[in-house]
Amino acid sequence: MLVEENGVLDITKIQVGKQVDGFFILSSVQEGVASNQKPYVTLILKNKTGEIEGKIWNVTEEQKEVCQSGSIIKVRALVNEYKGLQLNINLVRSITMEDGITLDDLAPTAPIDKEMVDNEIIKTILEFEEEEFREIVLRIYKKYRSQFLVHVAAKSNHHNQIGGLAHHTSTMLEIAKRIAPLYPMVNTQYLYSLILLHDLGKIHEIENPVAPNYTTVGTLIGHITLISMEVNEVANELKKEGVIKEDSMVPTLLIHGLSSHHGQKNWGSPVEPMTIEAQLVHLIDMVDSRMNMIGDAIEGAEKDTFTRVPAMKRDFYVL
Amino acid sequence: MLVEENGVLDITKIQVGKQVDGFFILSSVQEGVASNQKPYVTLILKNKTGEIEGKIWNVTEEQKEVCQSGSIIKVRALVNEYKGLQLNINLVRSITMEDGITLDDLAPTAPIDKEMVDNEIIKTILEFEEEEFREIVLRIYKKYRSQFLVHVAAKSNHHNQIGGLAHHTSTMLEIAKRIAPLYPMVNTQYLYSLILLHDLGKIHEIENPVAPNYTTVGTLIGHITLISMEVNEVANELKKEGVIKEDSMVPTLLIHGLSSHHGQKNWGSPVEPMTIEAQLVHLIDMVDSRMNMIGDAIEGAEKDTFTRVPAMKRDFYVL
Amino acid sequence: MLVEENGVLDITKIQVGKQVDGFFILSSVQEGVASNQKPYVTLILKNKTGEIEGKIWNVTEEQKEVCQSGSIIKVRALVNEYKGLQLNINLVRSITMEDGITLDDLAPTAPIDKEMVDNEIIKTILEFEEEEFREIVLRIYKKYRSQFLVHVAAKSNHHNQIGGLAHHTSTMLEIAKRIAPLYPMVNTQYLYSLILLHDLGKIHEIENPVAPNYTTVGTLIGHITLISMEVNEVANELKKEGVIKEDSMVPTLLIHGLSSHHGQKNWGSPVEPMTIEAQLVHLIDMVDSRMNMIGDAIEGAEKDTFTRVPAMKRDFYVL
Amino acid sequence: MLVEENGVLDITKIQVGKQVDGFFILSSVQEGVASNQKPYVTLILKNKTGEIEGKIWNVTEEQKEVCQSGSIIKVRALVNEYKGLQLNINLVRSITMEDGITLDDLAPTAPIDKEMVDNEIIKTILEFEEEEFREIVLRIYKKYRSQFLVHVAAKSNHHNQIGGLAHHTSTMLEIAKRIAPLYPMVNTQYLYSLILLHDLGKIHEIENPVAPNYTTVGTLIGHITLISMEVNEVANELKKEGVIKEDSMVPTLLIHGLSSHHGQKNWGSPVEPMTIEAQLVHLIDMVDSRMNMIGDAIEGAEKDTFTRVPAMKRDFYVL
Amino acid sequence: MLVEENGVLDITKIQVGKQVDGFFILSSVQEGVASNQKPYVTLILKNKTGEIEGKIWNVTEEQKEVCQSGSIIKVRALVNEYKGLQLNINLVRSITMEDGITLDDLAPTAPIDKEMVDNEIIKTILEFEEEEFREIVLRIYKKYRSQFLVHVAAKSNHHNQIGGLAHHTSTMLEIAKRIAPLYPMVNTQYLYSLILLHDLGKIHEIENPVAPNYTTVGTLIGHITLISMEVNEVANELKKEGVIKEDSMVPTLLIHGLSSHHGQKNWGSPVEPMTIEAQLVHLIDMVDSRMNMIGDAIEGAEKDTFTRVPAMKRDFYVL
Amino acid sequence: MLVEENGVLDITKIQVGKQVDGFFILSSVQEGVASNQKPYVTLILKNKTGEIEGKIWNVTEEQKEVCQSGSIIKVRALVNEYKGLQLNINLVRSITMEDGITLDDLAPTAPIDKEMVDNEIIKTILEFEEEEFREIVLRIYKKYRSQFLVHVAAKSNHHNQIGGLAHHTSTMLEIAKRIAPLYPMVNTQYLYSLILLHDLGKIHEIENPVAPNYTTVGTLIGHITLISMEVNEVANELKKEGVIKEDSMVPTLLIHGLSSHHGQKNWGSPVEPMTIEAQLVHLIDMVDSRMNMIGDAIEGAEKDTFTRVPAMKRDFYVL
Repeated sequence: MLVEENGVLDITKIQVGKQVDGFFILSSVQEGVASNQKPYVTLILKNKTGEIEGKIWNVTEEQKEVCQSGSIIKVRALVNEYKGLQLNINLVRSITMEDGITLDDLAPTAPIDKEMVDNEIIKTILEFEEEEFREIVLRIYKKYRSQFLVHVAAKSNHHNQIGGLAHHTSTMLEIAKRIAPLYPMVNTQYLYSLILLHDLGKIHEIENPVAPNYTTVGTLIGHITLISMEVNEVANELKKEGVIKEDSMVPTLLIHGLSSHHGQKNWGSPVEPMTIEAQLVHLIDMVDSRMNMIGDAIEGAEKDTFTRVPAMKRDFYVL
Repeated sequence: MLVEENGVLDITKIQVGKQVDGFFILSSVQEGVASNQKPYVTLILKNKTGEIEGKIWNVTEEQKEVCQSGSIIKVRALVNEYKGLQLNINLVRSITMEDGITLDDLAPTAPIDKEMVDNEIIKTILEFEEEEFREIVLRIYKKYRSQFLVHVAAKSNHHNQIGGLAHHTSTMLEIAKRIAPLYPMVNTQYLYSLILLHDLGKIHEIENPVAPNYTTVGTLIGHITLISMEVNEVANELKKEGVIKEDSMVPTLLIHGLSSHHGQKNWGSPVEPMTIEAQLVHLIDMVDSRMNMIGDAIEGAEKDTFTRVPAMKRDFYVL
Repeated sequence: MLVEENGVLDITKIQVGKQVDGFFILSSVQEGVASNQKPYVTLILKNKTGEIEGKIWNVTEEQKEVCQSGSIIKVRALVNEYKGLQLNINLVRSITMEDGITLDDLAPTAPIDKEMVDNEIIKTILEFEEEEFREIVLRIYKKYRSQFLVHVAAKSNHHNQIGGLAHHTSTMLEIAKRIAPLYPMVNTQYLYSLILLHDLGKIHEIENPVAPNYTTVGTLIGHITLISMEVNEVANELKKEGVIKEDSMVPTLLIHGLSSHHGQKNWGSPVEPMTIEAQLVHLIDMVDSRMNMIGDAIEGAEKDTFTRVPAMKRDFYVL
Repeated sequence: MLVEENGVLDITKIQVGKQVDGFFILSSVQEGVASNQKPYVTLILKNKTGEIEGKIWNVTEEQKEVCQSGSIIKVRALVNEYKGLQLNINLVRSITMEDGITLDDLAPTAPIDKEMVDNEIIKTILEFEEEEFREIVLRIYKKYRSQFLVHVAAKSNHHNQIGGLAHHTSTMLEIAKRIAPLYPMVNTQYLYSLILLHDLGKIHEIENPVAPNYTTVGTLIGHITLISMEVNEVANELKKEGVIKEDSMVPTLLIHGLSSHHGQKNWGSPVEPMTIEAQLVHLIDMVDSRMNMIGDAIEGAEKDTFTRVPAMKRDFYVL
Repeated sequence: MLVEENGVLDITKIQVGKQVDGFFILSSVQEGVASNQKPYVTLILKNKTGEIEGKIWNVTEEQKEVCQSGSIIKVRALVNEYKGLQLNINLVRSITMEDGITLDDLAPTAPIDKEMVDNEIIKTILEFEEEEFREIVLRIYKKYRSQFLVHVAAKSNHHNQIGGLAHHTSTMLEIAKRIAPLYPMVNTQYLYSLILLHDLGKIHEIENPVAPNYTTVGTLIGHITLISMEVNEVANELKKEGVIKEDSMVPTLLIHGLSSHHGQKNWGSPVEPMTIEAQLVHLIDMVDSRMNMIGDAIEGAEKDTFTRVPAMKRDFYVL
Repeated sequence: MLVEENGVLDITKIQVGKQVDGFFILSSVQEGVASNQKPYVTLILKNKTGEIEGKIWNVTEEQKEVCQSGSIIKVRALVNEYKGLQLNINLVRSITMEDGITLDDLAPTAPIDKEMVDNEIIKTILEFEEEEFREIVLRIYKKYRSQFLVHVAAKSNHHNQIGGLAHHTSTMLEIAKRIAPLYPMVNTQYLYSLILLHDLGKIHEIENPVAPNYTTVGTLIGHITLISMEVNEVANELKKEGVIKEDSMVPTLLIHGLSSHHGQKNWGSPVEPMTIEAQLVHLIDMVDSRMNMIGDAIEGAEKDTFTRVPAMKRDFYVL
């Protein structure tokens, strides 16, 4: 059966020529006119299992009413093949209370336990030896805590589900904790601070984790400068409060590591890593983002075949 | 005569085999041991007319005492040729009150009238139509005003004299005022704001305009992020004071233009220009920096010859 | 009303579902066969306000007759949406005398006063101090004067309207006159000469300013070499006439500046700028071409939105 | 005391003007003639603590006899400064039995316990689930085991001490074991196989771990192709023996991961990683090589200063 | 007449609106659903004269049966224009014995005489002076001889017909023989050996010369490493047999030249050419591949027009 | 014996510690002052066999008189080693009539028979079928014939001896004649025309073949534009004379092939090859220049060693 108990159709398993039913988040709608002069709409339909294009030919005004971008709809459709699979939609309607379906049932979500992640992060911060690292990171984390736990780590490419930001950050933290003991010259509180903060600017850069998009401020400034400014603000507050020293190097070190975490200027870092910890954060970010990009793409792929990983512009082979 | 009344030797005119006398800023000192096992020092000597290497062979302890980096010394030397001209120094002493020489007589200085530049900038800011641009720029300018007027615009390459930052900024402002009328879609207060602020971060990035060097914070963070954080801070203050609105786009626009003013990611801008004014600031910066690089290099060059402009990795021909 | 008195439909304002009438230059025609086996044509329709795709489904032989690329037609159509707006054309006919419509009413034209531009250029040339610059530039300008005033400066990207070449050149000249006084080491007659000649080779490189396209010679040789050869020819004539000296450096300097005006080898310059004036021409060209590319794209764009500038591969935000 | 009990001078602590004694590996010798027409030799002297240049002015024939590249010598010298510190050598002699000094006392050695590393590797291989991975890797490892434990991982840049190859490999293995559990789609026996083999070709590529240099075959072919051919050979043997199947994908997968472990074509990989395990080996290699490059450079550096890491063309700041 | 006696339609000469008949290799099949809800298939049809897209609208199940990728079919169709010419297919059937058509009649074939090529190669090898070159190359050539004579030299781009590999190799050999006498320092047996072996790995890398595609092993390892391993294997065999010496440089030289024959790392060579012969093979490969790419594209093009050569991303003009 | 009968010392064979005598062209002279305060000169000495640095310590005024750059001198010197071999010169004098030495004996000369080359070229041109190619090429060749036969093909890198231009051109012509028959679509008169003209602009670009240097016009314009202008001039003359048609494509084709012969924009070609002949000239140029660069470098190198080819930034191994 393609459809789970809760009505979520498994997009990866549908077949040409079959009829399917299912609930979807409608992530985009575009109107057109066919060569027979009849109006139609092209929909992008999304659920936990992926996304697929659908067409309603000879669309009625009532159907157009139903098809609002961002809403949840139920469709009955025939599976066609036209540049990949496509749904030829016969029936479409809005959901009703009786359907018992919510956004949470449909939106793809990162496989994390939010509470555990939150606890682990708080515990990590509280164990920092130096107050200056501890107070800066704690204050910023607490400010964004609730958004952090549901936000995406990217618009597409990797960790772009609800909770993706927390998933990516907590996995990087786990990697850091496991490999830092191999490199005793690394200052772990500085390393963990950078990991916890490195993508927090994405909360301002990207809006609407369900159908993520760049904000105006995110496009114009970018998450790297956004988080640098945030650290600067909080450091100034803590200086006024006497919690950190006027001439503390800690804010500078944090801003350096955050600014440089993309590793190269042409990847958007205004400076390149110049502390061993900044370099290591960049490398751990590479490990987790690449593993996630590839992992998402090859999940469910057949053995002995190649699967495209668009963000890496390469096919990957599955053993 | 090579030596002006005030004792400044014209380095560009000295000749092999001649004896010369002059006052210099000692910008670096390095000790060595010659193949005859005798100690010597290599000095970099600097004045308004340029810089030259000097050697004191068989250097004495007393002479080493005199040769402190950053101090002003008087030397008598024979001009040698060894990979270019070089001073073979016979006598060296510290300056005395009677010499009547000060740093101002020796340090290269940009050809500007500081008071006029300052007046022009204040007048420009006060004419901005919108209070939000006016108040942000005015507050930052006033904070750095005195340093701005004597700082360098770069460690080397262009406008690297005392007052170079004000020279570069005021020339860019003048260009902007002259060409903006040709492009009516350009918002001039935004354009002028970006120009006035664009290199202010160099005050933190580079220290000691007489012998400029990168600071630790400048190396780790860079002037682009430094000024972005400054704008963010001042905008937050003004929001608290009710002078600018909570949701004002002005801080975002300023930070965008400042972040992008290098024009390309691989030139250190975390984002590329996405407003016509940001693009224009980058282009005017290119015009003035290139004209200054070339102009400084070819100044005094003979006609019909090529002169190296190291920052552009090309020779330039003088008509 | 979308249609001005003279019958020019404002393409930027049409809306899906409405019927429109208007005159257009037909800039391209392509035949096809629909999935219902019926023939159709795809037209690119152009007027002063922009261009739009149109379709004639079930096209007749008579309609095909009318639809000659380059001709002026009148259409009645319904506005559809299919990958952007599209005209679904019901009626099409050739223009008649009574329509009172000419190419000038439809072809996009640069906002210049041709006579003023011509006067300003002639005046500028006549004021050159040295006869050698004056005579070479004057002779070439006079040769191409009439074409220069109506040609395009590019096939697309910037200044690609009738008169675009004169518009671009005269704006660059104006910028040069305004900023040259800031850089006294610049030889203005050399600078202005380069600006006046820099894109003249486009007259040979691109044909038909109404629907501009590369010529064979333009594709094989390019406007940079074309104008270099032209200067060489004229200089040889003037040498024979005794107007310029046999060993004059002026032709070499002009050819150098023209060859290098793209600024970089990978932008098609066989040599890079090696005179301060050649460098400045390149920079002023960057300023005016970028301002025009962005200005054209964002003209009429809504505030607080992003607009694509294809030639710069970036979106631009409008304040 | 600069000199440890065993006569090893700590090169990082010598000071200008002091006399020092010590044993060194002579890693290069160059003859010259000074400006006083007297012959001299320039030596590169090396021990566990680093390397330093030395000069013997007015060198005698006997001294030249002693100074054979690769031999161990004892010197007495005065510390000079000439483009960094330099030893001005007064006395030089070969070591004698009584000195009780061996290569092991002087050659820099990676901080590993060879036996433990060897045990861990053997244990890891034996735990591979599939015989094909196990047998191929085991046979190759056993063939090179003794060289592997004393070889370098590079001529310079990183892990370039005796045992560096085993150090680098075992650290990568440890990282892999720690982070693989976070990515369950990764086939660990394939991952560990690639790590164990990835730099084994360096045993042929680089000769003489004490003063490592590229071999002819290493220069002409490189370690990537060398190890690929080795795997192919052993796989063919095992096919003949019936241990692995004729159509086994394991040799192909191993050769793919080894070929691609530099991650990019312009870093010398003929193919780019196309299995998640190949990608991960590349990333773990980046982590360990960068951490080692930086770690070696900043070891012993003062806090709050910048230290050059030549292989990364950047300075690194030490907290 | 478009159709040759043997029923091969000349694709380069068909015209819009005409009906055509012909036999084709069906190189790909894709199903779709038209806007009128009817199923259709898109076919790529191929014969000696080129390839063309075809559509069967309202396709029946019987027609789908016939249309198996890789089979030979006969079609009757109307020529349409839709993004280039297209066949609108009315009738389609499988071939029958009576048609008297075989793959050889339809598959594009390189213009070579297989026997002559084979003889020339054998003769060339037997003339090598040194046994080591002779035996290694001979053994490998004999092993792949029959496949070599019918394989392609690439999937697309150049020499991608049946026999293309032999065509490319024998032309390169001919060039080498003609120009080697001009460079007496070149070792011809080494040069010819490299040419003969350089693309042999393509036999494993690409499968099915009629509709060539990359194999799994070809994608994961690439033809460069494949042939290097082959040489290594054969050299080891010959060492065991005592035919070549244990320390022979010949295998290393061959593997070097094969590894480096793409000339640059970012073109997939793990090492760059470091023998004059390796460099020359790369250059001759460039000559023959470029001449073939351009030659194939412009064959039959009209004079005074431009034709796209996709592999070179440029248009070429035909005199 | 190192010295041939005519007094030319074989620079490649001198050894440290030996005394040598020989005649040299003095290609550069630089004065200096040694650490013992005595003046010295550094000379670059050149003959057919190579070049070497020499020093005259404690140089006298008389010796300085003798050492004029460009003159021929006789020296007696001791061979030292200081960053490579160096001559420590004891005696130096100008040549006298009795020495019987001329520039021809010393200047490195390409191994060609000038008369044969000239005859071959004239014969080749006269065989062109079309008058337009024949007349343009013949007129230009005749104009530069005498300089062509003694000029260099480059300042350094390849064919930088007297006659190098003719050597390079005639070898390329020979290659073209040998391989053109393999590519029948190639127009040989066009191909040969491009080869004959391609580097003729170097006659203006580089001066003084004995010690070649870039001219001002060569630096500012480059040989590609210089020869393009020359072809344009001659074509215009021939049009006036009625020898070639007003609308002839031949000048355009020649200028295209000359402009594009560097093959890529970033190698200084304003356009890239767009005729098969232009592409082939570029490739043949690559073949002959690379073979000459490597051949010159490895000539005389020991077997089984690596020799640096600076222009290719690689070492080459000699079999």
